[in-house]
Amino acid sequence: MRSTMMDYPLVLPSILKRAKEVHPHKEIVTKWHDNSIQRLTYGEFYKRTIRLMSALRKAGVKPGDAIATFCLNHSVHLELYFAIPSIRAVLHTINIRLFPEQLTYIINEAKDKFIFVDKSLALAIEKNLSQIHGVQKFIIIDDKENVPFPNLPNAISYEDFLKTGDEIENFEPIDEFEAAGICYTSGTTGNPKGVVYSHRSTYLHSMSICMGDALCIREAETVLPVVPMFHVNSWGIPFASVMTGCKLVFPGKHLLGAGLAELLESEEVTLTAGVPTVWNVLYQHLKKTKYNLKLHTMVVGGSAAPRGLIEGFEKDFGISILHAWGMTETSPVGTVSHLRGFMKDWNGNKRYSYRAKQGVPVPGVEIRAIDDNGKDVPKDGKTPGELLVRGPWIAASYKSGESSESFTSDGWFRTGDVVVLDEFGYMQITDRKKDLIKTRGEWISSVDMENLVMADPNVLEAAVVGRKDPVRDEAPVIFVVPVEGKEVDPKGIHDRLKENFAHWQLPKLDDIRSVSAIPKTSVGKFDKKILRKELEE
Amino acid sequence: MRSTMMDYPLVLPSILKRAKEVHPHKEIVTKWHDNSIQRLTYGEFYKRTIRLMSALRKAGVKPGDAIATFCLNHSVHLELYFAIPSIRAVLHTINIRLFPEQLTYIINEAKDKFIFVDKSLALAIEKNLSQIHGVQKFIIIDDKENVPFPNLPNAISYEDFLKTGDEIENFEPIDEFEAAGICYTSGTTGNPKGVVYSHRSTYLHSMSICMGDALCIREAETVLPVVPMFHVNSWGIPFASVMTGCKLVFPGKHLLGAGLAELLESEEVTLTAGVPTVWNVLYQHLKKTKYNLKLHTMVVGGSAAPRGLIEGFEKDFGISILHAWGMTETSPVGTVSHLRGFMKDWNGNKRYSYRAKQGVPVPGVEIRAIDDNGKDVPKDGKTPGELLVRGPWIAASYKSGESSESFTSDGWFRTGDVVVLDEFGYMQITDRKKDLIKTRGEWISSVDMENLVMADPNVLEAAVVGRKDPVRDEAPVIFVVPVEGKEVDPKGIHDRLKENFAHWQLPKLDDIRSVSAIPKTSVGKFDKKILRKELEE
Repeated sequence: MRSTMMDYPLVLPSILKRAKEVHPHKEIVTKWHDNSIQRLTYGEFYKRTIRLMSALRKAGVKPGDAIATFCLNHSVHLELYFAIPSIRAVLHTINIRLFPEQLTYIINEAKDKFIFVDKSLALAIEKNLSQIHGVQKFIIIDDKENVPFPNLPNAISYEDFLKTGDEIENFEPIDEFEAAGICYTSGTTGNPKGVVYSHRSTYLHSMSICMGDALCIREAETVLPVVPMFHVNSWGIPFASVMTGCKLVFPGKHLLGAGLAELLESEEVTLTAGVPTVWNVLYQHLKKTKYNLKLHTMVVGGSAAPRGLIEGFEKDFGISILHAWGMTETSPVGTVSHLRGFMKDWNGNKRYSYRAKQGVPVPGVEIRAIDDNGKDVPKDGKTPGELLVRGPWIAASYKSGESSESFTSDGWFRTGDVVVLDEFGYMQITDRKKDLIKTRGEWISSVDMENLVMADPNVLEAAVVGRKDPVRDEAPVIFVVPVEGKEVDPKGIHDRLKENFAHWQLPKLDDIRSVSAIPKTSVGKFDKKILRKELEE
Repeated sequence: MRSTMMDYPLVLPSILKRAKEVHPHKEIVTKWHDNSIQRLTYGEFYKRTIRLMSALRKAGVKPGDAIATFCLNHSVHLELYFAIPSIRAVLHTINIRLFPEQLTYIINEAKDKFIFVDKSLALAIEKNLSQIHGVQKFIIIDDKENVPFPNLPNAISYEDFLKTGDEIENFEPIDEFEAAGICYTSGTTGNPKGVVYSHRSTYLHSMSICMGDALCIREAETVLPVVPMFHVNSWGIPFASVMTGCKLVFPGKHLLGAGLAELLESEEVTLTAGVPTVWNVLYQHLKKTKYNLKLHTMVVGGSAAPRGLIEGFEKDFGISILHAWGMTETSPVGTVSHLRGFMKDWNGNKRYSYRAKQGVPVPGVEIRAIDDNGKDVPKDGKTPGELLVRGPWIAASYKSGESSESFTSDGWFRTGDVVVLDEFGYMQITDRKKDLIKTRGEWISSVDMENLVMADPNVLEAAVVGRKDPVRDEAPVIFVVPVEGKEVDPKGIHDRLKENFAHWQLPKLDDIRSVSAIPKTSVGKFDKKILRKELEE
């Protein structure tokens, strides 16, 4: 018997067209660098996007061409998100915080034909022009920063470029398996690796994160993505938001403390998403200044959110931190930590310990954890294993075929994350495989130790790395950033660690070091590579 | 550039396996005919289902074979839902209320190899055996009704059949475009027409109805589908529920009034779904007897829910009726009527009028409404047009290629529903195309007139059909069922209609007729074919 259903492809123009058809009145709000607020309806956004599609085609962009963006979060970036894949070109969102050698490497590797650049970010490109090959045009987005128009070859302003297009609908058929976008991993070893998303994978990921058990993005929410649109496509939130027609608020450069809090308040944002460090700073700010927020959910990913932060936001402000886990290779949402129905009656302590886990796979994604022999580890909440993932929005390879060791022969992606799974299937990351500290032949989780230290209200951030030790193989070193106006108390930290770690796992007192800041990677994670280098020197 | 994502098919065994992996402890509850309650965990359900897969294979079932069910809503039916497609056979859920000629027609047309039958329903098959060809085996499910084991050829009890299988996992690769299930339309004209769902369409439909803007089914809900599992697969709710791991409650034959209310209360059901007539009866019952319900959402489809019912449930019991629209050809969910964020501040009157509409298309589905010349009608809330639909879970044809006039040459399904679309894109059904009443060359919507009459608290149900009239072409006739203990007041009804209908549209006083019941089709809709026949005779 043969199916009689339509052969209807899962492609991104469908999302764009739905927004115009169903939600033409809804708003897309951008706060530009000069604090001006721009409001665009989905109807207006649609017209600009089809004009952009036309302009790109007229400028010679062909299916399969990579077109890059070098931008913060704003409505023009959203136009690029849809126009580029809708003409079958490939959206390459460049991380603006990359080091020069990585920046030029990925532009050349992706063979970017055009780059759309925020005016205030152009200098980073300008400085490295001599290393960049094959880019034919730079289109400059006026982000309302008071800087001169950049000195780039074949540069044109975005609004002038847009005028070269016609406001006509011209959608061509697209195979759902065609490439729609590319992101590069922020790999701390070797060159960044390209992950090429398809229309299908992006469409399915968008549906997935709108599901009740994932992020539950829906029309009635007002969504502000703090997570940059160059960071795994802002975790897919822009695509999912346009799919639902929810009001979108883009913060431009207003990403921290007061600037962010004011925007959350004035636009009545209900759902936001970002890395823990952003929320840590916001939490400190909210403790000092009162706002009338409608915010109910903050999605946290990128790094583990400290349990103290989850508890603090809920108790002090009634805001729920929703823990999610993912990687560039997983589009990125793989797991989300909702409490099960029956857990809602648990006591606070037990509930928070579950909320601090990375959660269970969203429908569509499969996870397992294996030991060094490739056997599944027991779901006992304590036996660590490497996390393996598969599903329709998970990478099967990298663009240039590097690192085939990241993919098993039977179709799983090896994440490099060390996790434990508990009896209810909740996953908790204990460490990156390469960040584990080996002491007397046993592993210490740097993340466990960091979380314990960061639970101290006087501690803002803490990072743990191993230093070479003649007796213990490696010994843990803790870098601690105190909360403003407070001091680090090594003795107190050592005493608390004693309650949870074995004697031989503990750091020496003078390995608990007060620092003013912890170096971060381009996506805001602790850069342990730099810390380790400092220890060696 | 080529996508690097996994080629991971969207197939139903993934849903089954996820339930076992992620939610093995969650419950599937069945209330059997003798009022006994059966509890099965998803883990136990999984074991029984893989055993059933093995038993089916051993009994000779091959990929593509149709295997039928003739059952109410219970856990065994759910095992069949997953085991049959998981061995690449095709799940044929037969409507138990079909008339004999339709019943035998569809069994023969689908070429059903086995039929799984509830013991208490077997008589309906037994009586028509001579007209049924090619069925090799009848497997009898003990629904705990006090009736003898049926007299059917090659009959075996379900539990004995299950024992012939092995409890081993044996999943073979499945192409997502392969057939997974077949349902027949309850076409009031001609023979029922087969719609064959694929794994892909069923999987995507399941994701879709779990989205926040659709039914938002999620793990924390307790879901009781009243809508029968033989009625467009219970609107896809069983597949979606297993996908999320929510607690499922199956009511068996306890579908009305006290029997249903007690189960909603004792199992703490939060979300349910069914046709308006079921909720009408429940509403009358809840007005008389007090229950402690956790219910927050009742999904209503199949027919339009009267606005009065929506208002009554919300005001009297705090339960939200969520209006949805779909057909066998649309898997079925096509539109859902959530209020937009900004509508939540509207006054009650305006809000209820929107809640009573059929809503906007769920992400993935496209709708339009066209006039007789094939042009889109304006979105003005008053110009009627025929509803056209397309999307990944919409039919492109019928199994035997009949009724090609139901599908446009450019890929849309013609629903036969007459609708209006308003400025916000909300769709409201005004009638079935063939139920419109033509009076003096103009159309009257039978549904509009019915809703107005049913808003009367003394009216339980009302159906409007046209009778031939020498002067007016057709004249409306209203069949009214009064609430128990009340009487029909034709004069009062006529007066109220005057406020909303033109003089020439009104029925004559003696065309407002009190009846004790309105005949229903096999899926519980008003059977206007019978009413029209009565008028002719």
